[in-house]
Amino acid sequence: MKNTFGSSVAVTIFGESHGNMIGAVLDGLAPGIDVDENFIASQMELRKSVGSLSTARREADEVKIVSGVFNGKTTGTPITLIIENKDTRSKDYGELAYKARPGHADYTAQMKYHGFQDFRGGGHFSGRITAGLVAAGAVAINALRKKGIYIGTHIFSCAGVFDRDFINLKDDINTLNSLDFAVLDENAKNEMMQKIEQAKRNGDSVGGRLETAVIGLPSGVGEPWFDTIESVLAHILFSVPAVKGVEFGDGFEIAEKYGSTANDEYYSENGSVCTKTNHNGGILGGITNGMPVLFRTAVKPTPSIYKEQNTVDLNTMQETTLQIKGRHDPAIVHRARVVIDSVTALVLCDQLALRYGTDWLAE
Amino acid sequence: MKNTFGSSVAVTIFGESHGNMIGAVLDGLAPGIDVDENFIASQMELRKSVGSLSTARREADEVKIVSGVFNGKTTGTPITLIIENKDTRSKDYGELAYKARPGHADYTAQMKYHGFQDFRGGGHFSGRITAGLVAAGAVAINALRKKGIYIGTHIFSCAGVFDRDFINLKDDINTLNSLDFAVLDENAKNEMMQKIEQAKRNGDSVGGRLETAVIGLPSGVGEPWFDTIESVLAHILFSVPAVKGVEFGDGFEIAEKYGSTANDEYYSENGSVCTKTNHNGGILGGITNGMPVLFRTAVKPTPSIYKEQNTVDLNTMQETTLQIKGRHDPAIVHRARVVIDSVTALVLCDQLALRYGTDWLAE
Amino acid sequence: MKNTFGSSVAVTIFGESHGNMIGAVLDGLAPGIDVDENFIASQMELRKSVGSLSTARREADEVKIVSGVFNGKTTGTPITLIIENKDTRSKDYGELAYKARPGHADYTAQMKYHGFQDFRGGGHFSGRITAGLVAAGAVAINALRKKGIYIGTHIFSCAGVFDRDFINLKDDINTLNSLDFAVLDENAKNEMMQKIEQAKRNGDSVGGRLETAVIGLPSGVGEPWFDTIESVLAHILFSVPAVKGVEFGDGFEIAEKYGSTANDEYYSENGSVCTKTNHNGGILGGITNGMPVLFRTAVKPTPSIYKEQNTVDLNTMQETTLQIKGRHDPAIVHRARVVIDSVTALVLCDQLALRYGTDWLAE
Amino acid sequence: MKNTFGSSVAVTIFGESHGNMIGAVLDGLAPGIDVDENFIASQMELRKSVGSLSTARREADEVKIVSGVFNGKTTGTPITLIIENKDTRSKDYGELAYKARPGHADYTAQMKYHGFQDFRGGGHFSGRITAGLVAAGAVAINALRKKGIYIGTHIFSCAGVFDRDFINLKDDINTLNSLDFAVLDENAKNEMMQKIEQAKRNGDSVGGRLETAVIGLPSGVGEPWFDTIESVLAHILFSVPAVKGVEFGDGFEIAEKYGSTANDEYYSENGSVCTKTNHNGGILGGITNGMPVLFRTAVKPTPSIYKEQNTVDLNTMQETTLQIKGRHDPAIVHRARVVIDSVTALVLCDQLALRYGTDWLAE
Repeated sequence: MKNTFGSSVAVTIFGESHGNMIGAVLDGLAPGIDVDENFIASQMELRKSVGSLSTARREADEVKIVSGVFNGKTTGTPITLIIENKDTRSKDYGELAYKARPGHADYTAQMKYHGFQDFRGGGHFSGRITAGLVAAGAVAINALRKKGIYIGTHIFSCAGVFDRDFINLKDDINTLNSLDFAVLDENAKNEMMQKIEQAKRNGDSVGGRLETAVIGLPSGVGEPWFDTIESVLAHILFSVPAVKGVEFGDGFEIAEKYGSTANDEYYSENGSVCTKTNHNGGILGGITNGMPVLFRTAVKPTPSIYKEQNTVDLNTMQETTLQIKGRHDPAIVHRARVVIDSVTALVLCDQLALRYGTDWLAE
Repeated sequence: MKNTFGSSVAVTIFGESHGNMIGAVLDGLAPGIDVDENFIASQMELRKSVGSLSTARREADEVKIVSGVFNGKTTGTPITLIIENKDTRSKDYGELAYKARPGHADYTAQMKYHGFQDFRGGGHFSGRITAGLVAAGAVAINALRKKGIYIGTHIFSCAGVFDRDFINLKDDINTLNSLDFAVLDENAKNEMMQKIEQAKRNGDSVGGRLETAVIGLPSGVGEPWFDTIESVLAHILFSVPAVKGVEFGDGFEIAEKYGSTANDEYYSENGSVCTKTNHNGGILGGITNGMPVLFRTAVKPTPSIYKEQNTVDLNTMQETTLQIKGRHDPAIVHRARVVIDSVTALVLCDQLALRYGTDWLAE
Repeated sequence: MKNTFGSSVAVTIFGESHGNMIGAVLDGLAPGIDVDENFIASQMELRKSVGSLSTARREADEVKIVSGVFNGKTTGTPITLIIENKDTRSKDYGELAYKARPGHADYTAQMKYHGFQDFRGGGHFSGRITAGLVAAGAVAINALRKKGIYIGTHIFSCAGVFDRDFINLKDDINTLNSLDFAVLDENAKNEMMQKIEQAKRNGDSVGGRLETAVIGLPSGVGEPWFDTIESVLAHILFSVPAVKGVEFGDGFEIAEKYGSTANDEYYSENGSVCTKTNHNGGILGGITNGMPVLFRTAVKPTPSIYKEQNTVDLNTMQETTLQIKGRHDPAIVHRARVVIDSVTALVLCDQLALRYGTDWLAE
Repeated sequence: MKNTFGSSVAVTIFGESHGNMIGAVLDGLAPGIDVDENFIASQMELRKSVGSLSTARREADEVKIVSGVFNGKTTGTPITLIIENKDTRSKDYGELAYKARPGHADYTAQMKYHGFQDFRGGGHFSGRITAGLVAAGAVAINALRKKGIYIGTHIFSCAGVFDRDFINLKDDINTLNSLDFAVLDENAKNEMMQKIEQAKRNGDSVGGRLETAVIGLPSGVGEPWFDTIESVLAHILFSVPAVKGVEFGDGFEIAEKYGSTANDEYYSENGSVCTKTNHNGGILGGITNGMPVLFRTAVKPTPSIYKEQNTVDLNTMQETTLQIKGRHDPAIVHRARVVIDSVTALVLCDQLALRYGTDWLAE
């Protein structure tokens, strides 16, 4: 399956950066779930560019729901969310039709689509396509909240600056969902923003790492093979543009520990089984254990930079140089945050519907 | 889909650690591919325990092909590979029926399967189930080699000891595929083995990180959404027991770089486009660019340790302690290596068949 | 998977009869295929109501392509086709919110969606949703024609009137694709139209059987299990509203034959193997044999009739009667024809892409 | 997906007629379901040849469960059922390696697998492969019965002889499940058996039509698109060898009715909604309505006949004749019956698990 992901609850995305419309079809969500258009709009706002930290492209990103919602609630049939592209300046991209931008998908798109791809603004590879995922994800996030399941993501690190660790997950998630630049520590936030602005002044860009927590998930969700919770989350996370690493719990660090320090010992609390630590990020054998699900995602620096770079002219196969004009983000990690939350919500709705049936989310 | 993975080329696995048989059904591979039973046997050997570094359980791991191969070649219909379990000592596991082992899937299995799971030796969650993947993977690895595609994995780090970096990928892959403990640097290898033995003496265990390279892949393979090459590889990698992190190219490190240092500039060589560096691990926009595909996998320390641990008795819900007896591995990272190679080969066969048709692998 | 069908080439549909928009996302088609908007429009025209034989609802059915086509050709990424609903009169349907119409999906929709379904005009169950399939199918039909593969469907029988049998398939298909009421025999056509008008005058409706031929398909396409060509065609055919039967070749009649009269003997012609008869409809063991693929589809009479019917008021659970007002078709079999062609084309594009790779259709 | 069918509950089949083993992997069934090996054996018996009506090949068809069952109950992980092939006489088939048998898949297998297929006894195309489906289906049938869902199939017609119609479904299903030649009317049964024996004496074969009823299914199961209950049943039914037609309710006959005679009017009984007739076979809009699900399947005559037939020698491409030796069935319709029941049960378990969650079948 290509642009469709999920089994019981599935999302299909479409569109190109400079095309007519982008959007998503969200299928299989239980009937009777409230759809809050204001919440969708506020999630779209989080994905947008923040002041000088982001591209000068300004899209209204107005989401229009054209199917699947009736009297403010999901019908159970496909929910289609469309967003018109308005602020497109395709002339900025003329040269890019044949000069592959380093770090971008231009060259691989050419190899796969043989020149028929819509190259303008990255076409279907553009981060802009995530707007459809955020719109669909907003519906999913809201549905999960009604079931007591909350997702929050902060910028774990950016340009060498680290946010504080999660302390109280419930409070931290709450805080994060009210921030447009998702950093828990005020100083770290300011420092990161300065680093981003500095990179911009240098005609350069930065990346960052995001850390996500999910609370309220029941235990027993996921499969031992091949649809472990890690597998299905990683599958969709790695399809978010610029993501190059995913780790659960202590992730790469757990590989350097001893069994005695990596294992999460059990204790009993009010008749339920808990772990004293959470090195495994709430997942054992691919299945949730009722503890918070924790993971980190590595986002590479925006490949579009103003600095001159070496490349190859695909028409002549001659080496040449390229200076990317147009409007770019000096960082996207702060914008990727809401995308991570959205795809996480979509995957969890699917897993929960598979486990408990198609109506569970609305019960 | 649960125990089946892949679309055009798919693998289905089955079995429990102490059950009658384990195995795999490999479906969709092109007809006419040579199946080399000696090669399968040698791959099974790599997965096995190495001397004192591993569990005392000794399985012949004889692979019997019961369908899909005729006159030494694939028929194009399902190849079924079965392996009998012989050296099972289920009495060792009596207590584990109700005392959840920290770091293991016992508790999550209980939450998902309500006590009906075969708990003996970890049942269907056991690393033993990977034997079926290795058997099926051997067929896939061999098919890829005929097409000039080679996969090699080394232990990047274990217990704080680091192997040398890849130098010449072709030579290094060749070397690795002849080693039963896959470390390129002889000193690093000895040091790692000592650390593992030491952990064993301490009743403890260690993890490690594996680094994999794939050479010879054509460009243009993979999808922008949702089946990026990173996504489909990560999906199956995260279903390998104990894997808690996956990163491509520079992975988590690329997140701390600048665009100008993370981008891979292009140059032209003999009429083909190459990159000067490979920070993106051979994948851009989810699609191969013809450079080597590079990724790292974090393997957590074996959760079975002799040290006493705190847990909960699931019958009484009382806190208790547990000392795991039975036969365990003080490390599995060296055994996981061939599993990583195998699942990588299975995923690539699927992606290549989707791209070029069902017969391509045998052409 | 719910509203998505296909593997390498997949279609996703959305919309409700009286909603804002309906449409389809066609994913995975090879890049570089010509997209002819006039041909799409002409196919939409075939699906529309024909004079007095059909519903009085008049929709422009203007198809807008909002993604996946660039410079008149497919890009290889999702093609989104949207159609606005304009001529909706939802007040006609007030009573139907709680009075289940016999033969319709009202009651089953209620059982599945618990009252949250958009009941207006049949909502997502409406035959109107097939407009998206026809739009997407037009792109597929055109792609197949470029490869020498042609599809044609005629009304085999309607209201007791039978069309003549296929004689010369190439010519007959050509003829059929120029007719808006797809009957090869002029007398049969007139008689059928009279029967439909008569049924309308009686406040009643009729059904009919469609017969489809596909020529130009290569041999060797399809699977022995479970994706036989019969299976994948039947899967999508049975999801077309009102279809209650599908048969290939001689179908139900072959069941009454002897082996000696049912088998298709082989002969050799210009170095290729042909069959003297085609009782098996071009498919043996689930796989095409190079002969024309032939199948028939049973379409039930339109369930919306003016005659008073017995039903149950779902609010009060009391028995009651119902006289359906609104605008209905006295027959849909002539309109279903282009839907059958469309879904056939979508399935064949998928099967061909799976067999020969993603680029084959554009080569 | 090729040899795997289903989503939440999936079956994978493997094997060749004259290979080592055939079998099935049944994945996703709820944990805690009783597995009755005697019932499996009795279902295997039904699939076997009946006296002189069937092939002289005699297989013990002993089913060995090698995974997924623990203490007599399903574990929730893959259930693997294997059956050894014992009575194979491959020398009978020498000539068939290159002379395509009319009506068989020999020629299409050659076109698809290029000569690498295991041609002995039809290889993977053989009806023998259904033994795995029957073994897996037996587990599913038993699980459904515990939930009050019963399936029964009779030979509707064979060689021009018709069985009586269903009268009392509960009783008739009960009766059918105790018969090895599934005909309700004793006279019809005897006449059919005589016709089959006569065909055998003539070196010929006959086909037949099967009619299936399912009672006890809840309403609200299935999807409007594309996974209608008709679609998913037809998909797997058309992959059963020799099936050339499938119809639901009145099927092809409903196409000749008027809306007023085809619609099933509603009435209310003990607070639930029923239909007075069942022309739609218990399915409206692709979704069950709580009435019995009814369908008919057309089974073509066994293509293996003793009569001499014309064919082409695939080595020389010269026309030639063929007289099939070996052991064949003069009819398979009576043996196909239990296959139909089995695949029906597998599909229903999947649909129910998707609707109500993975544990529902065992609750």
